[in-house]
Amino acid sequence: MTPSHIAMCAQLAMMLEVSATPKPGNIDRDHNYVDTRFEHFLAGAVGVFPILEKAARSDSGAGSLIREAVLESSKWQKGGNTHFGAFILLMPLVMAAGRCDDIACLKVQVQKIVRGTTVDDAVEFYRAFFEAGVKVKPVKDLDLTDAASTEKIRAQRLTLFNMMEISSGYDMIAEEWTNGFQKTFDCAASIQNKINKHGINDAIVFTFMELLSKYKDTFIQTKFDDRKAEEVSIRAENILKKGEMGARMDDIYSFDDELIREGVNPGSTADLIISGLFVSLFEGMRF
Amino acid sequence: MTPSHIAMCAQLAMMLEVSATPKPGNIDRDHNYVDTRFEHFLAGAVGVFPILEKAARSDSGAGSLIREAVLESSKWQKGGNTHFGAFILLMPLVMAAGRCDDIACLKVQVQKIVRGTTVDDAVEFYRAFFEAGVKVKPVKDLDLTDAASTEKIRAQRLTLFNMMEISSGYDMIAEEWTNGFQKTFDCAASIQNKINKHGINDAIVFTFMELLSKYKDTFIQTKFDDRKAEEVSIRAENILKKGEMGARMDDIYSFDDELIREGVNPGSTADLIISGLFVSLFEGMRF
Repeated sequence: MTPSHIAMCAQLAMMLEVSATPKPGNIDRDHNYVDTRFEHFLAGAVGVFPILEKAARSDSGAGSLIREAVLESSKWQKGGNTHFGAFILLMPLVMAAGRCDDIACLKVQVQKIVRGTTVDDAVEFYRAFFEAGVKVKPVKDLDLTDAASTEKIRAQRLTLFNMMEISSGYDMIAEEWTNGFQKTFDCAASIQNKINKHGINDAIVFTFMELLSKYKDTFIQTKFDDRKAEEVSIRAENILKKGEMGARMDDIYSFDDELIREGVNPGSTADLIISGLFVSLFEGMRF
Repeated sequence: MTPSHIAMCAQLAMMLEVSATPKPGNIDRDHNYVDTRFEHFLAGAVGVFPILEKAARSDSGAGSLIREAVLESSKWQKGGNTHFGAFILLMPLVMAAGRCDDIACLKVQVQKIVRGTTVDDAVEFYRAFFEAGVKVKPVKDLDLTDAASTEKIRAQRLTLFNMMEISSGYDMIAEEWTNGFQKTFDCAASIQNKINKHGINDAIVFTFMELLSKYKDTFIQTKFDDRKAEEVSIRAENILKKGEMGARMDDIYSFDDELIREGVNPGSTADLIISGLFVSLFEGMRF
């Protein structure tokens, strides 16, 4: 598989995720926020191509690749930060894909990539965080708005993997790095199981609902609190319990309206959908 | 501008065109046909990247680039032919963009590219046509389903530009090749004039309506007849006459419903929107 093919799989994963509707609370083809629109996500996904291709050719430098991805994609649109969390998951997966032809290899290589990250990766990652003004904190006791944090990272000799270990207890994206991208691979399997029966849009929507019902969304925990995230997961679970998938679509629409009204957006769950779609497309999923 | 940057401008042009809603009669983010969906257009636009990048590095071979684009983009999705007409416009523009930094240069170079096409380009283009099973005929007296046509092309020493000259009287895409891509550059100017006031989606929708009101759509002429195409243009013109753009949106939605019910899709007008968006993004348009 060429670096260019792998980068296109990642691009298409970002496109399909943001298009799938309704993904309760999030931007999709039919829902925009005030300053960030559907089209900003498309433009960000197009613009990041060179960094994705570079990642597929790289054995190291995950931290600076994430930072470059954030900077490059933001040159193509004025809607602000669109894909930060997704890049944290995609970059090691894309790097691993560059060494692999099948999913068994991908599972092994992505762990090697994240475990092989360095202190420089941590510093670059931190720079990306405060440059992008992202709300989610990766590590509790380091102030992300403070450029001096990088000195602390160097003094403590923290690698990017170490930082993810520290935050993995309360951050589902960081946890992917430490648990072998388990939710990502489960997500990929779920989408592929559903695609023939439900089509690409609904396969994504139903998988999104499943993830949301099982795991408290980190973005909601940070923006609101743990209780709100739990409440949203229970609501998703109750909708899924009610019956056949087609029949539940109305409930998913109402749930979407409700979350959007409250400003509750499960952004980390959307990031997992992107990484799951990437794995599916890497495996050759077509629709 | 790098070949990769130019290819990304073309990709994003395809994404923005298919997303803009409502584009009366056509697929958009809220309208699918039975076998071809919005997501097929996204996947086709992602998958064609390597051919776009190759085109931006090429001085010749427009015919085979169009054919490769059709073949490559169809590997990424199962919705059939999504962008044939768009590729006929995009390939010479992308080739020209590879030699240029500004629009004045682009206008000159794109004419050199199309006028420099060869008999081989014509043969490759013909092969693409019957391989893709496209309905619109490029040249009246050559049967596109007949592989022997290529012998006739060689015998008559027709270049691809000659073929476009023959069909330019009744095909708005072919006419772009012979008139210096005038509608494309007008379309780009119209979108850029509207984007600050109306935003990217509505700027595209209103420009689409303007094009439709001014020019009979070739795809409708071929699928139905000249009279139907004229009727659609008059309907579009009457809607535009009615007043301020915002106020007309309801009429555009009704017009869209009507055309979709009748199976009338102005596909050639959509192709012009793509080439106009490409020129705008090449010029640095951001949103």
